[in-house]
Amino acid sequence: MSEARSGSSVIPDDAPVAALRRGELVESVHRGRYAVVDPGGAVIDSLGDPAGYVHMRSSAKPFQALPLVFSGAADAFGFTDEEIAVACASHNGEPRHLAAVRSILRRVGLSERDLQNGFHPPMHAPSAARLLKTGEGPRAIHGNCSGKHAAMLAVCIHAGWDPAGYRDPGGPLQGLILRTVETVCGVEPGGVKLAGDGCGVPVFALPLKGMALGFARLAAGGFEGFPDDLSEALLRVRDAMRTHPYMIAGTGRLDTKLMEGTALIAKSGAEAVFAAANTEEPHWGVALKVSDGAGRALAPAAVGALARQGVRVPRGFSTSPVTDLRGETVGETVPLL
Amino acid sequence: MSEARSGSSVIPDDAPVAALRRGELVESVHRGRYAVVDPGGAVIDSLGDPAGYVHMRSSAKPFQALPLVFSGAADAFGFTDEEIAVACASHNGEPRHLAAVRSILRRVGLSERDLQNGFHPPMHAPSAARLLKTGEGPRAIHGNCSGKHAAMLAVCIHAGWDPAGYRDPGGPLQGLILRTVETVCGVEPGGVKLAGDGCGVPVFALPLKGMALGFARLAAGGFEGFPDDLSEALLRVRDAMRTHPYMIAGTGRLDTKLMEGTALIAKSGAEAVFAAANTEEPHWGVALKVSDGAGRALAPAAVGALARQGVRVPRGFSTSPVTDLRGETVGETVPLL
Repeated sequence: MSEARSGSSVIPDDAPVAALRRGELVESVHRGRYAVVDPGGAVIDSLGDPAGYVHMRSSAKPFQALPLVFSGAADAFGFTDEEIAVACASHNGEPRHLAAVRSILRRVGLSERDLQNGFHPPMHAPSAARLLKTGEGPRAIHGNCSGKHAAMLAVCIHAGWDPAGYRDPGGPLQGLILRTVETVCGVEPGGVKLAGDGCGVPVFALPLKGMALGFARLAAGGFEGFPDDLSEALLRVRDAMRTHPYMIAGTGRLDTKLMEGTALIAKSGAEAVFAAANTEEPHWGVALKVSDGAGRALAPAAVGALARQGVRVPRGFSTSPVTDLRGETVGETVPLL
Repeated sequence: MSEARSGSSVIPDDAPVAALRRGELVESVHRGRYAVVDPGGAVIDSLGDPAGYVHMRSSAKPFQALPLVFSGAADAFGFTDEEIAVACASHNGEPRHLAAVRSILRRVGLSERDLQNGFHPPMHAPSAARLLKTGEGPRAIHGNCSGKHAAMLAVCIHAGWDPAGYRDPGGPLQGLILRTVETVCGVEPGGVKLAGDGCGVPVFALPLKGMALGFARLAAGGFEGFPDDLSEALLRVRDAMRTHPYMIAGTGRLDTKLMEGTALIAKSGAEAVFAAANTEEPHWGVALKVSDGAGRALAPAAVGALARQGVRVPRGFSTSPVTDLRGETVGETVPLL
């Protein structure tokens, strides 16, 4: 199949990655594409078009956290690895996540009220139910992106930039983050396309293989030719993610379980994007996009792509039952990779 | 692209039908297929493979309601057209829907407790909030399929079959419904594949063009060679849907608005299936499946497919904005047809 065009936008080549089976037939099918890249940029494995663009969404968070380290803010304020991990998180809004975000804000002399990420109930259902019971509505701190936003505020405070403008796509912080993404992901200036993320900060679109390359270099803890402070930041962010996988997502979540059960770092994002990388030799990074953005297809597709790289993924992710309203199993979601 | 196989199941050929655009790029894309068929079975227009199987899900409800009429039950119990319409519904659980379902049950001497469709909160958010406020949990009557289940019970009572067994795939009622679907949709015996629907009754998978054919014949109010009682039932169900579009879905719903604004009958279903048909000459039926099952792609895809048949769809369905948590627009869902 060749590329299909819609207006000014290209729809990249893809292939079936997961399906919902009902009875003896496939009822619905999810397509996707992935690229596996080594730290030098060589594509080791791929499905679909590795050059097709992808919005990184929350998979960009480890890169968005790099300025926190290389600016000197993390050292100046004495951030712990747990706090650096929650800066890379799409967290569940569980108590430990909130405590880490609050600690970041406290260290830099700010409060919850300085967060501009909008709000949604905690992703962790028991935490959401507890909050509902108190009669409080969800606040920005409960949003899965609050650690990222707190870290962005911290960099502004350290650099002497107006923290109120931390989301401004034309401001100094977002410019620094964009250049960091370009460097780590090996994309020429202008090659990263900006749009708005769900939490109100710029989100980055770039070739799928560039996203995978960034993760390969994150897993390697740097890359030759990178400034020392950038490589040191990659190393510290990587180790914070490896040491505190719970802080990256939380109870029952794919990224957390993958990092606990393998030598990977992993970070998924909205509209069913996923990135992971091997922190052991040989280093490689993988970026995956379920073309239709369906969350239910992410785990089966990711597990399938990782299995092809020889990664033994903890059981229980690749298939899940489909039940009727009476609780009887009538189908299952399965990987096609 | 040729057909891709997964295990014993075939994934039918399809093409892009809708997309989510973020910034200047397509972030996610939904593929689909449709077939437009005249009452004689000729395929007038199609996208993707018209012979590929599709689970009809709730789009089967008008056919599942036919025995209610041709068995004589509707006349014997004095069912109104509103009640026949709610038997064809995936209703919102609004007060008028519940009243119609209760009336069906009352006429045949049964009650809510005889419904076996499982439960979920009313699809209509204000009705769900009102129910939550009373402290009551959702019951089977609130489920979008309760009209269908009530009608199935009514046929059993009329025919002297045990109403407790109305869901049994091997029982007389479900056998009668299966043969009715085969006849109306022009599928040879054995050509319809059975599986379990979300509400615990058998669901039918058949070629997409067969689903479209059934709707063409429903819109025509019968077909030459059909027994008179079947043609009369098609006519009565069609007219009940046309006369009471609110009962088929409810406030703000696609099927209701389509029927109110055009000469169509329309019935969508779970996993993003859709069927509609032209009740004016020339009669035709369309069946559409969004391959990945995404509800957000159903309206743009359906509107696109209908526009190709010259149907002017009421405004406001084909695109919808994508907003961030702060309420700012960052993209939109758009048709690709």
